[in-house]
Amino acid sequence: MTNSSATATTIAQIAVEAGVSVPTVSKVLNGRPDVAPATRAHVEEIIDKHGYRRRKGRSQRSGTGLIDLVFHELDSAWAGQIIKGVEVVAGAERIGVVLSELGGEHRPRQEWLDDVLARRPLGVLFVLSDVDDTQRRQLASRNIPFVIVDTAGDLPEGVPTVGSQNWSGGLAATRHLLGLGHRRIAMISGPGDVLCSRARVDGYRTALDEAGVAVDPELIRYGDFFVGGGYAHGAELLDRADRPTAIFAGSDNQALGVLRAARERGLRVPEDLSVVGYDDLPVTEWLTPPLTTVHQPLTEMASTATQILLRLARGETVRNARIDLATELVVRQSTSAPPAGA
Amino acid sequence: MTNSSATATTIAQIAVEAGVSVPTVSKVLNGRPDVAPATRAHVEEIIDKHGYRRRKGRSQRSGTGLIDLVFHELDSAWAGQIIKGVEVVAGAERIGVVLSELGGEHRPRQEWLDDVLARRPLGVLFVLSDVDDTQRRQLASRNIPFVIVDTAGDLPEGVPTVGSQNWSGGLAATRHLLGLGHRRIAMISGPGDVLCSRARVDGYRTALDEAGVAVDPELIRYGDFFVGGGYAHGAELLDRADRPTAIFAGSDNQALGVLRAARERGLRVPEDLSVVGYDDLPVTEWLTPPLTTVHQPLTEMASTATQILLRLARGETVRNARIDLATELVVRQSTSAPPAGA
Repeated sequence: MTNSSATATTIAQIAVEAGVSVPTVSKVLNGRPDVAPATRAHVEEIIDKHGYRRRKGRSQRSGTGLIDLVFHELDSAWAGQIIKGVEVVAGAERIGVVLSELGGEHRPRQEWLDDVLARRPLGVLFVLSDVDDTQRRQLASRNIPFVIVDTAGDLPEGVPTVGSQNWSGGLAATRHLLGLGHRRIAMISGPGDVLCSRARVDGYRTALDEAGVAVDPELIRYGDFFVGGGYAHGAELLDRADRPTAIFAGSDNQALGVLRAARERGLRVPEDLSVVGYDDLPVTEWLTPPLTTVHQPLTEMASTATQILLRLARGETVRNARIDLATELVVRQSTSAPPAGA
Repeated sequence: MTNSSATATTIAQIAVEAGVSVPTVSKVLNGRPDVAPATRAHVEEIIDKHGYRRRKGRSQRSGTGLIDLVFHELDSAWAGQIIKGVEVVAGAERIGVVLSELGGEHRPRQEWLDDVLARRPLGVLFVLSDVDDTQRRQLASRNIPFVIVDTAGDLPEGVPTVGSQNWSGGLAATRHLLGLGHRRIAMISGPGDVLCSRARVDGYRTALDEAGVAVDPELIRYGDFFVGGGYAHGAELLDRADRPTAIFAGSDNQALGVLRAARERGLRVPEDLSVVGYDDLPVTEWLTPPLTTVHQPLTEMASTATQILLRLARGETVRNARIDLATELVVRQSTSAPPAGA
């Protein structure tokens, strides 16, 4: 199978080889439900074998264009930033944004993909969600490009991705705390099986190493990015006899949990405990105290990803479509020097 | 013009009367841009005159169904609650949700409606946004039902609307503060030209009246629902010699602004100042202190509105489609008795 043979393959040839009618191949390509599962699997196999790609003009419905925006989970504040970034770019080109959430029990995976195929969007934007190899090939054969915002895991080469500089974010937050004089600095990162959590921890380690501070494995925790994770790990860390003087919370939501754990123990922030968040959600500047955090440019990441997607949809070649935008430390009032004698 | 004549009118008759071709009428109905503005206006007039309604089956595109979800403004946390409610219902029926934001400079009004007409959604959900009479008629003639979530203003009879009990919310919040012993209670409501702001103020007035507390007009403010409005009005109120001992902030975002104004003046919440919010956004229970607020069932409102919309889209008759869901006071830690001697 080479590219040139792929270009030559037509729906008619696929139909002949699969021993089905042309309309049946067409139904499979359009995610229509009225094809027997076995037939469908067989047709998909042959589509895949020939590297068939629907020609450009045919993948667009008449009427206005749509793109699909897919969230792994619709966590409100975080998702809002992304949606805004997508809307700005799509709205300017009068392209509709179809929102969906994966992982909810109401939207099983293949059903969801069938709906996308039937909708024939200009492209699909995935936010922190996994596309498996089969789905990737199914989208490719329908000539529906996709771009991933942030990355939940290892993606093969050639998948366009817009992320942010997680390692640098971890480094900057930890350097800031070291600069204030902290030595016992805990980190509550996101889930350990998500690459960005690992990258932030590595930035943290490097900053400690630079400063000649030994890494205490007891002070490194993997949470869930949500308030509850920050609260549970924060409580455990603060109940230790050798409790840290600073906690780098790995997400603003986790920082909220740490703030509550501190408050419940009568610890003042930042006098008794410094706290750094991650994300810079709009609410953080209004917290008590306003939160020092690492700004993750979610809106810009979403805008950039949408721009790349629309270029791919127009058939342009996009080089270097794996971009990490810069993160930036925003110093507010939740960090200060450690308490005297700590 | 009667209903029976309306049913009888066909595209062909409209074309004859307008002196244009059938495809031209069809283009206008589908919001296509390639019709001269004057022709288009003329055709719309005749469509309107005859009360033409596209027949049901034709208004649905082949493939999966879509609904349009339209925000006046995409304020993240608030919008997230609504989106979740719509997604749950639409997702269960495998209906795609197309998100858009009005009022942004990128999406002028008529262009936006044209895009909706071209998309032929099953229906449109408006969130706190105005649909003018012309647009309402345009949607009706295309047989595209719509439902409004909350109400920004006076809507004529017969427009399906899901709101919440704003007056009761204002009443409950103010009764709570009176019950704690407060007498100087300020209210920072939303914009004065939005009906729900007025209803909340009226609930506040009635509670004061019930308790025999005179209403001080100086203590009633109209903000913008955003943090900045709460901060500015909160600062003014707290700088008064006869400052209030409690502020009912009319939105959680405004409450955040009040909390900052209090903090900057060295006032402790709730010891020196009680604060009540409105909405019960997810973040409020994690604030310092956790916010007492009026729960507005945004997610349930959105789910209910989506259910009504889908029933209308199926051609069902929906009676009593103007519903206000209950609001509920959630008492947390930002309210207590007024300081002694206040």
